Order: sequence, then structure tokens, then C-alpha cells
Amino acid sequence: MNYYGSQISKLIEELSRLPGIGPKSAGRLAFHMINMPEEQVEQLAEAMLCARKNVRYCKECYTLTDQELCPVCASRERDHSTIMVVETARDLAAYEKTGKYNGVYHVLHGAISPMLGIGPNDIKLKELVERLRGEITEVIIATNSTLEGETTAMYISKLIKQSGIKVSRIASGVPVGGDLEYIDEVTLLRALEGRTEI
Amino acid sequence: MNYYGSQISKLIEELSRLPGIGPKSAGRLAFHMINMPEEQVEQLAEAMLCARKNVRYCKECYTLTDQELCPVCASRERDHSTIMVVETARDLAAYEKTGKYNGVYHVLHGAISPMLGIGPNDIKLKELVERLRGEITEVIIATNSTLEGETTAMYISKLIKQSGIKVSRIASGVPVGGDLEYIDEVTLLRALEGRTEI
Repeated sequence: MNYYGSQISKLIEELSRLPGIGPKSAGRLAFHMINMPEEQVEQLAEAMLCARKNVRYCKECYTLTDQELCPVCASRERDHSTIMVVETARDLAAYEKTGKYNGVYHVLHGAISPMLGIGPNDIKLKELVERLRGEITEVIIATNSTLEGETTAMYISKLIKQSGIKVSRIASGVPVGGDLEYIDEVTLLRALEGRTEI
Repeated sequence: MNYYGSQISKLIEELSRLPGIGPKSAGRLAFHMINMPEEQVEQLAEAMLCARKNVRYCKECYTLTDQELCPVCASRERDHSTIMVVETARDLAAYEKTGKYNGVYHVLHGAISPMLGIGPNDIKLKELVERLRGEITEVIIATNSTLEGETTAMYISKLIKQSGIKVSRIASGVPVGGDLEYIDEVTLLRALEGRTEI
């Protein structure tokens, strides 16, 4: 594959290791980078290195951040007595984008999956239990609506219920804008079960 | 958009400037990079910087390379009397992948496009004419089969024909594996016009 000389080939090779980037996209990106202003390439390289070096877990909620505390945990305006449990930092961002949730989060970094050999000790569950010793009034479980997410939700609810803290699970049902015709049966049944009076 | 802290946001911002990478893919890539082994991130950053710094035009054919001459021009096994004219370095790579072309190339870095204000002097045409002073027997024009590519092909053929060098154009027709039903009329007509006896 060395039609370009070794340095371009090397760049294409490195780029195509990234997820969702095949050899063709890698080629396109590589040529784009070669034609980019040099300082923009430097900025990108620097951003990558800085992020990789400095990003760590938030001391409170275990999301990824470059400070000791993430912006949410550091904020005094948030309700620190309500914890939303999510699987990943990107799920946290998805809820933050709604702009309506005022509590804090807990990022598990995964979900229990016997199939993949991921047990309760492989995700940040101990850390969640630790946090419940504080003044927590509600735990909202917002793991994905997948087999693993549901298993994890079940596990957490059992774990917490003993302590008397209110535990809730985000609703499962028809997504807004969703066309009933194209929605799977399990979701339709969930939507039915979870119906609310209007 | 600062749900992650500034360094992750900065990385996402830089990544989403790349072609074909929207904010969602940028987020996915950024989180992947944060979880990558540190030396792999360093390798990628280094590959980017090196390629950007050291890649230049081949002295002969003007493709992008990190040496004075690209691997094709530097090879003694290639037929240096046949030049294939392509628009970009990636087109060169496409033909190199076939493994069957034994001549050398000339990369124009674009095509004549009055619409975009790109004239003959904005692409490496003077450089091509310069090369024809050597011992060249055939020029194969392999610009794209687009309006711009065809215009460029026409321009080049007129330019060269005076010199008595053989000029050819790659065939236009139905791609191998292509289903006639789904092929546009212009291509079908080209295929008909270019039919060969069997």
C-alpha cells in the first residue's frame, strides 16, 4: 500500500485504526490533513495529546473530565441529593443537552453483562454505594434500555432499596416523533404498561 | 457544549472540523482517543505532524510524497516514457492498486473548472508540458469522467497533439459488476459509442 511514501502511509494506517474509519476514509482524512494549515494540524495533535494526558475521572461522579470535579459536580446550583446513574460519559452529555435535569450524575463506565464477563465489580458500583452514605434522596437509573442496561438497573435497584432511598427508572416507550408502525413489539408493550392518565 | 470539561470539548471541536466528521462522530472519536493507550495517541499525533511537515510534491510527477521523488518516479522498473495524467494523488493510488500499470504519472492537483474559477494555470499543466520535452511516447489522460475532468482532458489533448506525442483517454462505460438498469443514460451512450469488437 505504499503508493504515497512511508509518512503518508503511516498516517493512513494510524487513522484507520480509529473506530468507524476504514482505509478509504483514512486516506481522505490523511490528504485533508496534509493540506490543512500547519497550525491547525498542530492544534489537533495538541488537543489529542492534552485530552489523553489530562482527562481523568471526576472524584465524585466518575465521569471523564480534566478537573478534579466535573462541571456538574462542581456546580453549587445543582441538586446534589439526586443522582442519575448512567452507563457512559456520553449518556451524561445526552441528558445535559436537555438542559432540564438539575441533579448530579454517577457514571458506571459500563453495564453488567454476564455474556461479556462484566460483573458488578467491573463497573463503578461500589463507588455509587459509597456516595449513598451522603444525603441522597433519589437515585434515577438511566442505564440503556438494553439487556445489559436493564440487568444493571435491576441490580442497582435491589442494592439500594434496602437503604430506603427512593429509586426510579427512566420511562421506556415510544420515542417522540416515533411512528407506531415501525416500533418493535417490546417497546409497544412497555409503552402500554407504562401508560399514564391524561 | 461544555459537559465534559474544556479539554475534551476542545478535542471534539478540533475533530469535528475534519471532513465527514460531524459532532456525533467527533464525540465518539474523542472518547475513543481518551481510552486509547497513550503511546498510540502519541503515534497518531506524530504521524499527523510528520506527514504535514515533510510531505511535498514529487519533483517529477507532483504527487504528494515525503521523498524528493515518489516511489513510482524513483523506480527504474517503470516505463518513464508513458505518462498517465490524473487529477489527484488519490487517483494515482487507485491506479497503483490495480498493479497493472507500468508507466509513470503526472498529478494535476485539480481540473479546469470555469465555474470555480480554476484555469489551466491553476493546475500543474505547465509542469506537464515541461516534462513532454523528454522522451515521452504516450500520454494517457485519466482525469475524472466529470464535466471538469472532460474539459481538462480536452484541453490537454489539444495542447499535446501538436507535439506529435500519442494522446489517449481512459475508456468510459459501464463499470464491471454494474447493472445496466441502474446506470445513467450518458454512461450507457458512452458505453455504446466505445463498443469494441469481440
